[in-house]
Amino acid sequence: MAHYPEPLEALIRELKKLPGIGQRTAERLAFHLLGQPEEEVERLREALRAIQAEIVLCRECFNFAEADGRGEDEDGDRRALCGICRDPGRDRSVICVVSHPQELWKIEKTGGYQGLYHVLGGLISPLRDVHPEDLHIEGLMERLRRGGVREVILALDPTVEGEHTSLYLARQIKPLGIVTTRIAQGVPIGRDLEFTDEATLSRALQGRVTI
Amino acid sequence: MAHYPEPLEALIRELKKLPGIGQRTAERLAFHLLGQPEEEVERLREALRAIQAEIVLCRECFNFAEADGRGEDEDGDRRALCGICRDPGRDRSVICVVSHPQELWKIEKTGGYQGLYHVLGGLISPLRDVHPEDLHIEGLMERLRRGGVREVILALDPTVEGEHTSLYLARQIKPLGIVTTRIAQGVPIGRDLEFTDEATLSRALQGRVTI
Repeated sequence: MAHYPEPLEALIRELKKLPGIGQRTAERLAFHLLGQPEEEVERLREALRAIQAEIVLCRECFNFAEADGRGEDEDGDRRALCGICRDPGRDRSVICVVSHPQELWKIEKTGGYQGLYHVLGGLISPLRDVHPEDLHIEGLMERLRRGGVREVILALDPTVEGEHTSLYLARQIKPLGIVTTRIAQGVPIGRDLEFTDEATLSRALQGRVTI
Repeated sequence: MAHYPEPLEALIRELKKLPGIGQRTAERLAFHLLGQPEEEVERLREALRAIQAEIVLCRECFNFAEADGRGEDEDGDRRALCGICRDPGRDRSVICVVSHPQELWKIEKTGGYQGLYHVLGGLISPLRDVHPEDLHIEGLMERLRRGGVREVILALDPTVEGEHTSLYLARQIKPLGIVTTRIAQGVPIGRDLEFTDEATLSRALQGRVTI
């Protein structure tokens, strides 16, 4: 049996490293790309270059930000500010804490939140050797100590690590006299109760509210 | 609602152009790539560059070939030959005709074919304005006229366009006195007859063989 030409093999190898992309999908994508005009492939290469060169972490909330100097402030600080931290229309008295930028964007898509964010960059996990000092927790405390924040909403995964991180943060924030809340846990909307796992259902019962 | 930084949007836009990749998958891939070290993304960019720069069509069969000069022959012809055409172990008296390189590799993976190939680059389709002269048919006829080939196997899609192209090729090849065959059509292996469509079943009945 003959083998693919080496450059094709190499591309399949790289594509297979992506999440959810197996051998067959990688082959299909590679053959597709091979059939594209040079400009098309070049556009993808340029987009890949740009995310590395032009995206940095926001100096306030650690969300992704464009490294374009637009975030320069009065002190001449050239490190970038993300679009949300720069937006004068956002409520600066509320900060929602998430573990990764993906979750920040999920919340943005609900369209129901007008406050600021803080991205931890992960969750505390002794098993995986992730400790508080490995996350952007000191950055959060600094923002809170500056004053002006009345509520911190914790929107972390409803897992052991998420719970652990939430409790750690709540304990850190308490002395500052700022209200700490966390997003509600219960049955997800639009799914039959029958398919809801017992832990979720038990939590939903505990958290029942008067209607 | 805030938007993704423009370089991230641009990457999602490019990834969405790939077959089978929708908005959500593109977002997941883009966030993954954003979290990768620079060398990783650079490897993918290099693999994309290489398929454009280093893969050409084989001058004999129009399969993908490496443009590395290894295909140079006695006449000093520097256009590339693919690995299969270069392989002295292949049976040069049989040519299997496919529409795209993907199908060639599918057949290679069966491990049961030792002849050569010819890639048409598509199928005749008056509706889509694809005519015989748009495909690598003249290249095939040239190879056949050179002599030494005793059988041409047509392995084209079992569709109207595939049938049409097969009949056209059979008619062109007939005057050369070369046997033209086509791969068997019938019920696919390993699937319940119950789920086989009627056209396939009807064809399988017509093509029944003595056991």
